[in-house]
Formats: sequence, structure tokens, C-alpha cells
Amino acid sequence: MDTYLIEKDFKNLLKEQASYREAIMLAHWDMSTKIPKNGIEQRSEVVGFLSEKLHQIETSEKMKYFIDVLKDSTENEVMKKTIEECEETYERNRKIPNQEFKEYVMLQTKSESIWQEARENADFSLFQPYLEQLVDYNKKFANYWGYEDNIYDALLHNFEPGVTTKTLDHVFPELRKSLTSLMDKINGSTHKPDASVLTGHFPKKDQEAFSVEVLKRMGYNFTSGRLDETVHPFAIALNRNDVRVTTRYDEKDFRMAVFGTIHEGGHALYEQNINSELINTPLATGTSMGIHESQSLFWENFVGRNKAFWESHYELFKSHAPAHFQNVPLDDFYRAVNEVKPSFIRIEADELTYPLHIMIRYELEKALINGEIKVKDLPGLWNEKMNNYLGITPPSDKEGVLQDIHWSGGDFGYFPSYALGYMYSAQLHNTLTQEINLDEIITKGDFNQLRNWLTKNVHQYGKMKKPLEIIEDVTKEKLNPEHLVNYLMKKYSSIYQL
Amino acid sequence: MDTYLIEKDFKNLLKEQASYREAIMLAHWDMSTKIPKNGIEQRSEVVGFLSEKLHQIETSEKMKYFIDVLKDSTENEVMKKTIEECEETYERNRKIPNQEFKEYVMLQTKSESIWQEARENADFSLFQPYLEQLVDYNKKFANYWGYEDNIYDALLHNFEPGVTTKTLDHVFPELRKSLTSLMDKINGSTHKPDASVLTGHFPKKDQEAFSVEVLKRMGYNFTSGRLDETVHPFAIALNRNDVRVTTRYDEKDFRMAVFGTIHEGGHALYEQNINSELINTPLATGTSMGIHESQSLFWENFVGRNKAFWESHYELFKSHAPAHFQNVPLDDFYRAVNEVKPSFIRIEADELTYPLHIMIRYELEKALINGEIKVKDLPGLWNEKMNNYLGITPPSDKEGVLQDIHWSGGDFGYFPSYALGYMYSAQLHNTLTQEINLDEIITKGDFNQLRNWLTKNVHQYGKMKKPLEIIEDVTKEKLNPEHLVNYLMKKYSSIYQL
Repeated sequence: MDTYLIEKDFKNLLKEQASYREAIMLAHWDMSTKIPKNGIEQRSEVVGFLSEKLHQIETSEKMKYFIDVLKDSTENEVMKKTIEECEETYERNRKIPNQEFKEYVMLQTKSESIWQEARENADFSLFQPYLEQLVDYNKKFANYWGYEDNIYDALLHNFEPGVTTKTLDHVFPELRKSLTSLMDKINGSTHKPDASVLTGHFPKKDQEAFSVEVLKRMGYNFTSGRLDETVHPFAIALNRNDVRVTTRYDEKDFRMAVFGTIHEGGHALYEQNINSELINTPLATGTSMGIHESQSLFWENFVGRNKAFWESHYELFKSHAPAHFQNVPLDDFYRAVNEVKPSFIRIEADELTYPLHIMIRYELEKALINGEIKVKDLPGLWNEKMNNYLGITPPSDKEGVLQDIHWSGGDFGYFPSYALGYMYSAQLHNTLTQEINLDEIITKGDFNQLRNWLTKNVHQYGKMKKPLEIIEDVTKEKLNPEHLVNYLMKKYSSIYQL
Repeated sequence: MDTYLIEKDFKNLLKEQASYREAIMLAHWDMSTKIPKNGIEQRSEVVGFLSEKLHQIETSEKMKYFIDVLKDSTENEVMKKTIEECEETYERNRKIPNQEFKEYVMLQTKSESIWQEARENADFSLFQPYLEQLVDYNKKFANYWGYEDNIYDALLHNFEPGVTTKTLDHVFPELRKSLTSLMDKINGSTHKPDASVLTGHFPKKDQEAFSVEVLKRMGYNFTSGRLDETVHPFAIALNRNDVRVTTRYDEKDFRMAVFGTIHEGGHALYEQNINSELINTPLATGTSMGIHESQSLFWENFVGRNKAFWESHYELFKSHAPAHFQNVPLDDFYRAVNEVKPSFIRIEADELTYPLHIMIRYELEKALINGEIKVKDLPGLWNEKMNNYLGITPPSDKEGVLQDIHWSGGDFGYFPSYALGYMYSAQLHNTLTQEINLDEIITKGDFNQLRNWLTKNVHQYGKMKKPLEIIEDVTKEKLNPEHLVNYLMKKYSSIYQL
């Protein structure tokens, strides 16, 4: 059979994978937004079944055959990268014995529901035995996959290929030092914002109307997407022509919905603007968790929490908001939405304390995987670090070590990508502002230039480029946490008159 | 391997089928309710792919093995019926050569979009060549499947197993004669209802509030379902714990939403109340289109269009309805929602003219499949029959032969089940009213007794019983159109004072 025909068969197999992926994504979206309660149990099994079918294709002999035959014979760049991606998935998955993989999948499902119970009851001991097993499996898998310096690197690779413990241990302490020193200054400031002006009854439908308007202005395409309500906001791509966002409405505090929607809108713009040539390949999605987060955080922080944004959107906001906002001056409003205040819950943290939450989780999971600490000691260690880094101690494990779902799904190595995404976004911001007067276009409320810049430099590539390749190609330098520090210093010095 | 282990493997295969089915149903539901426009194209391919996978299992060697081994060795009644169902599906599907099946699936997809275009443009000639091919394939398939008397029986079997052309040709003319004679009398009546009292601006959210309330009273379980809005209302069962209904709101005329919701609610009650032992088998769904329709029509007509229903629900209705209904007396209202008036569109037809729409379609498709008429002559023949049976001629093919989607999907033999369902419902009604004072419980607004009766006699069985088996077991007689005629005679004699 000649290469052309083999490529054709290979593309059919890729399309099958894409079909399974869409069915799985839809099942997840529905489970988080629309499913009636009694449908959940059966649905979990459907998702498990479809995921297994996808996994079977990824690790099939057929896949191996295509990889071997096409690897060196194709000239097409997309095909080359596709093969690379498939090969990596094939190799990594094949290294895990089938029996262990099945046991692990069962453990994941079970652990998630146990974690939920443990969190609700603020009882870590319920979750502990499951977490111990999850850590053990991840250590085993990390050894199967292999690593150079640190076993944790093997896990990091799943979420941020190319980034290692060495990189993180270089940038994180530097970042922490700067953030802590900045926070100390802020604590001593006598010019603090008053966030109490932000609360008050704000009906859901008005928050929704404003959120939809902002999404439209960002360039989110509602003909290829939709906005729904969930407990935990997310963006999900069924394919680039069907990218859905969700948000959460708190009628007492609009910040969750407004900044949450902008954040998820940033993720969605990434997926909607991937090059259409990549459709039906495994490259048709964001290249890593970190780069994805760089896009959502760019919109949330550099746009949404920017004074220029409120200069152009405060009137629109007030037209939807409760009457008392009429008496809140723009400057007070802007400073209030940027209040820095150590808090227990990561996803509710402000721009400045956010990275500290991530570092705590990173340090703990790295130590866990390296066998330096024990699962049973996590609650104590978590509280100790919270106290050291943020100066506060969670009232219970519910607001502490049990708050996030990730570990219950066995996702170790995921957290750093949140802080990385933040640093990426600041580094991209630094380059972008040399080319575009960002504040000016934001003040005008015209986001086309910004979105086009992001599409040209980031979105379009999907997985054609690795995370650090994107950062280095665009910014002409390696990962550099100084840009984030500089941005925060400048912004918060002004807000707190430091 | 002993039978126990083989049964276990077989059950796993059935579960895989159920998973594919749920994924397909969810994809369909989403396509009709939530999907953004640009997602449709890709989604159609996903549905096609998943359907093919399901079809592969149904016709697999593995399936054949299980059928052969388990057929005579199992004592369990559910397992026996499951095997029978699987065998029938296997045999029927295997009779169609793979290549022809694939071509046919492609033709179906294409034809549906062409039909939509043809309908929008009221241009039958666009659709004609596709319909010709669809008829040819159905003739071929009918011959593969085999039949005794009439080739059309082989198609009828797909939707109403056990019912034949012979039965239909016996009951339909009888029914038509009675209906036509009743209509003649109605036309001559001087005591006609005034339906104009029913119209006026009725906001969607108020119609929705009333519809939801009625569904709840019917016993539709919202913890295992949900109500959404669509262009074409439907009920869909992902599994018995996730049965969703949709409705359409016309703000000028509430009848579409209210009677449509009750109708779909009737379908949904059937699926929600199938015995839980049948979960994950192919028996866990309605036994035929006709029996399904008997349930939806029972609720729509014998409950929803019943005077007793409005005696107990008119106050509730008025609390949601526009103010002018305060001035419409109950009796005028009741008579207005039961107005008989020949109309072009089947799904908007009244109780009395509805079966005539079905008979026209039945007569035409039977003649088509028997080669007695040609596709190109359909528009003329349709209009001729409309004129003969209903005394009106559609202004264009859009309101005529092109109005229904079924033929574009190759569904020949489907239409009779609508009229059969109607006759079934009247026959069930006749038996039920001998055991239960239906008007009394409806007047009380307590539907539990009714729903329990339907569950006990119909719902619970799923596909454990064939359609006519259900009718004969419950009513102790064969299909008898007299019950429908008697019901209509009595009801409309009173409304029109004949």
C-alpha cells in the first residue's frame, strides 16, 4: 500500500479518536450542567466505557503500525507533529501494564466520590487511604515513564511538557520572595481599598446579561459556543466549532461570575481560534495546561482587572448592576476589585496571593512523590505552609488541604501549570505591550487587535508547538518570572500607594 | 466455559451497547436543544460513527456466539427475551449486505438535509431523486427481510411487530368511514365552539410554568428528567433514570406547548416506569412506536382534552394565563380546545382529523413500496387525498407532502403506528374506565391511580411483551377500532350537540 493510502487510513483512525473525544466531552459537559440527578450513576459508566475505547485506540497495534510506517515518510508538517503526538501517547500509555491501568481508573472514580465526602465532612482521614494509593500509583507510573533529575518531572510532563522541577525550583522561590515582600508593604499601607462597596443583591439574570455582553466584546463566538451555569466554572472544547463556557452566579457578590466568565472566555478563545487545518487531529487543542491558563489569566487579569477595562465598561456594568453602584466612583470600584487579602480558597484568591497557593501545593506534592513526606502529615503541613506564606490558618481541612479536586483524580504535577500560566501571561503581556498600546485599545473597548495578536502568536498553533517553544518564539527569552513581579509591583504600588 | 460466565460476558456486551445508545441519544438531544449552530456538522459525523459502532456489535460474530450458546440454556425470562431481541436484530441486520447498509446510511444523512431545503423552498423536485432511491433501498431491504402477504409488512415490522397490512386494511377503512360521517355531522352543526377565545399574547415563561406544573402532577419525575425548548417537541430516554422532554412555545397560542408537553410527558412516563430489572438490556425501552404513541395520546387526549381535567386545572391555568381568560367560561374553553377543523399540518390536527392524515400517508407509502405509484406523482396524489378525506387542498407542498421528516430518513412503515397508537389508547381507555372512575380521579387532579394502572399494564414490561400482546392481555380482545369511534362519537356529539 502506498503512503497516500496509509495516511488516509490513519486519518480515519484519528477521526474515530476525535469522535470518541467529542462524545466524552459532551457527556462531561452535560453532567456538569444539565443532567438530572438520577442520571449521574449510569453516565459515569458511559464516560468510563468511552474513555476505555479511546485509550484502546491510542495504544493499539494499528496505531503503532501507522506511527512506524508514516514517521519518516511524511513531508507534511501537521502530519509529522500528529505522528509525534500519537507516538508519545502510545509510548507513555503502553509503559503502564494494562492491569495496573484498569485498577488505577477504578481507583480514580472511587477516590473522587470519597474526596467529595471527605471534603463535605472536613474529614481528611476518609480520603487518606485513597490518596496514599494514588500517590503510590503515580510513583510507579513515573518510574515506568522515566525521568532525568527528579521523579516528579515525569508527572510534570503530563501537564507541562518541557518544564522540570529544576526550572520551577529556580523561578518559584524568586517569585515567592518578591510576592511576600510586596505583601508586607501592602499590609503596611494606609491607603487600602474598601471591598465592601462591591457586595449587595445583584440578580443572576443581570449578572448574566453583563457577562454575555463582555464575552461578545472579547470576540467569543456564540455561534460556536454557549454559556451555562455550573457549580465549578469551566471551558470545554468539543471541537473548535463547539467550545462551551460555564460560570457561577453568586447573587451577593458579582466578582465570581464576572471575572470567572472572562477567565473561561480566555480559555474558550484559545480553542475557538486553533487553526482549522488541525481539526480531527490530536493537535487541535491547547498545547498545555500552563499555556491554556496563560490565556484565561491574560483576559481575567490584564484585561478584566485593568483600570482601562473599567473605564470603558463601568457604565455598561452599572446599567446592569444594583442601584448603589451609581454612588461608587470608578476609582474606588477599580481598587476594590483589586483588593489583596490572604484567603483560604485558591480559586477565590486575588492576583497577588494566588501564586502562593500554587507553590504550597507544588512543594507538598513534590515532597510526596519523592517520598520525603507522608500522606497522613498533609493536613498539618498544609496549615503550616499557609501560615508561613499567607499568615492565615484554615479553620478546617475543608478550607485547607481538601479544597481542590485534582489529587482525587490522581493529577499530580498539574498545579504548577497554574503558576506557570500566570508567569507566561505576564511575559506575553510584556512583549505584547511593546507592540500594541494595550490600555488604549482596552479603553476603546476594541479587543480585536488583542485577540488577533494572541491568535497569531499562541492560539492558532494548537499542539504544533510545545509550551516553552511558544513562550520563547514570542518573547525571545526563556521563562522569566520578573515580568510578573514587575507587573504586580507597578500595579499594586499604585493601588496601595506604596 | 460454563453458562454463568458466558452470561456475564454477554451482559458486558449488552452494557457496551447501552453505553453507545446513551452517547447517541445524548448527542441527538444536545443537537436539538443546546448545540451551537457551527457544531452541527461535526456532530452529525460523531453520531454516524457511534451508530456504526453500535451496529457492529449488533451484527458481530461475538453476538452470534452468545445467541447460539445462551438461546436454549437460560431459564431466566429477561435473559430469554433479551436473546430473542438480539437475535432478531442480528438476523435482520445481517441480511443487508454491508456495502448497501453503508450507502444507505450516507443516503439518509444526505436526504434529510435535502428534504429540509426542499421543504423550505416548497420544491418537491429537489427531494424527488433522493426519495426515489430511499424507496428503492426499502424495497430491497424488505425483500431481504421477507414477508408473507405484502412487501410493506416487512417494513411495518420495524415499527409495529405483529401488525400487518391485512390488519390495517381491515381497521383503517372502517375507522375512516366513521370519522368522515362524524365530520359531516359536525360540519352541519349549528353549535360550534369559538376557538378565537384561546389566542392572545401568552408569555413563554408563563406557559412553561404551567407546563412544568402539569408534568409534575402527571408524575413525571424531574429528578430523572428535564424539560427544554425545541422546534420539534420530543421525548428521549438516555436510560430510565434520564428521560428528557422538550416542548415548543408559541406565544400567540398556548395549545402547542400545553398539549405538546402533556403528550411528550406521556411518552416519558412510559420510559421512566420500565422495570429496573431491564436496565442495560435492549428491552429497556418502549415495545413499539404504536404502544408509545398510545401512552402519549392517552395523556394528551383522554386526560388533557378531557373536561374533567379542565375542571380541576382551569384555575391553575388562569393563574398563569393572560387576563382575558378570566372572562372565558370553563365550558367555552373546553369546547374551544376541542374544536374540529380540517388543517394541513398533521401535528397540529385535532383528535378527529388526525387519523385521516395518517391514513393518507399510509396509503401512499404502501402503494409506493408495492410499485403501484411513482415518487414523482406524490404531490398530486397527496393533494387529491387531502381533498377527498379532509376537503382542503394545501397551498404548497410545504404544507403538503413535504411536511414530515420521516421519509427523508427512510422511515417507511412508521406512520401507521400513529393511528394504531390512537386506537390502542382508546381500547386501553375502554378497559381502564371499567376498573377506575377516570373522570373522578382526573377531577380530583390525582393521577397516581391512572399512572399506576398504566405502569402495571403497559410501562413496566418494556420490550418483554409485543405490542398486540400488551393490548390483548390488558383488554382481552384483539385490536378493535370501535373503541376509538365510540369515544369520538360520544365526546363530539356532546361538544357539537349532534
